[in-house]
Amino acid sequence: MNDYQFKVVKLQGDFVWHDHKDTDETFIVLAGRLRIDFRDGHVELSEGEMYVVPKGVEHKPYAEQEAQVLLIEPRGVVNTGDEKGSKTAENDVWI
Amino acid sequence: MNDYQFKVVKLQGDFVWHDHKDTDETFIVLAGRLRIDFRDGHVELSEGEMYVVPKGVEHKPYAEQEAQVLLIEPRGVVNTGDEKGSKTAENDVWI
Repeated sequence: MNDYQFKVVKLQGDFVWHDHKDTDETFIVLAGRLRIDFRDGHVELSEGEMYVVPKGVEHKPYAEQEAQVLLIEPRGVVNTGDEKGSKTAENDVWI
Repeated sequence: MNDYQFKVVKLQGDFVWHDHKDTDETFIVLAGRLRIDFRDGHVELSEGEMYVVPKGVEHKPYAEQEAQVLLIEPRGVVNTGDEKGSKTAENDVWI
């Protein structure tokens, strides 16, 4: 909507520590469970639960079993923030 | 998130025809069923389904039985668009 994108993603295992300097990032769990680790704690999200990670806050998503998640963020945000690596995904790939 | 708000609303019956001149509006159905009428058709949304109404497009939400819906839109958007009336809600009321 407007200049925001909704991205349905599947997560399993550990993601990388990263942050997004310029934007908040919203997670809505569609299926499964998602943990988001922060440097000073974590949240556990179940199906139907939502969490907004504030901009600039380092976080690391983790799912013990495959989780399906709806991400909401401005167009062009890189999934790994400034931490480019093997888990960096190309944007706008339709699957 | 950022300058956007997530609003959980309950709808039952007919809403008013309106549009939002400056923004798209996203509906995610959390519980129940929601119909959105347009001047040239309609969509039916079930639990877990999402729809983005483009800016400037007249629409009228309708729920035969109470539906719970997550609305996503920029801060300050008026629920009835330019059609102020008895269904116009004050923003930022916490319930």
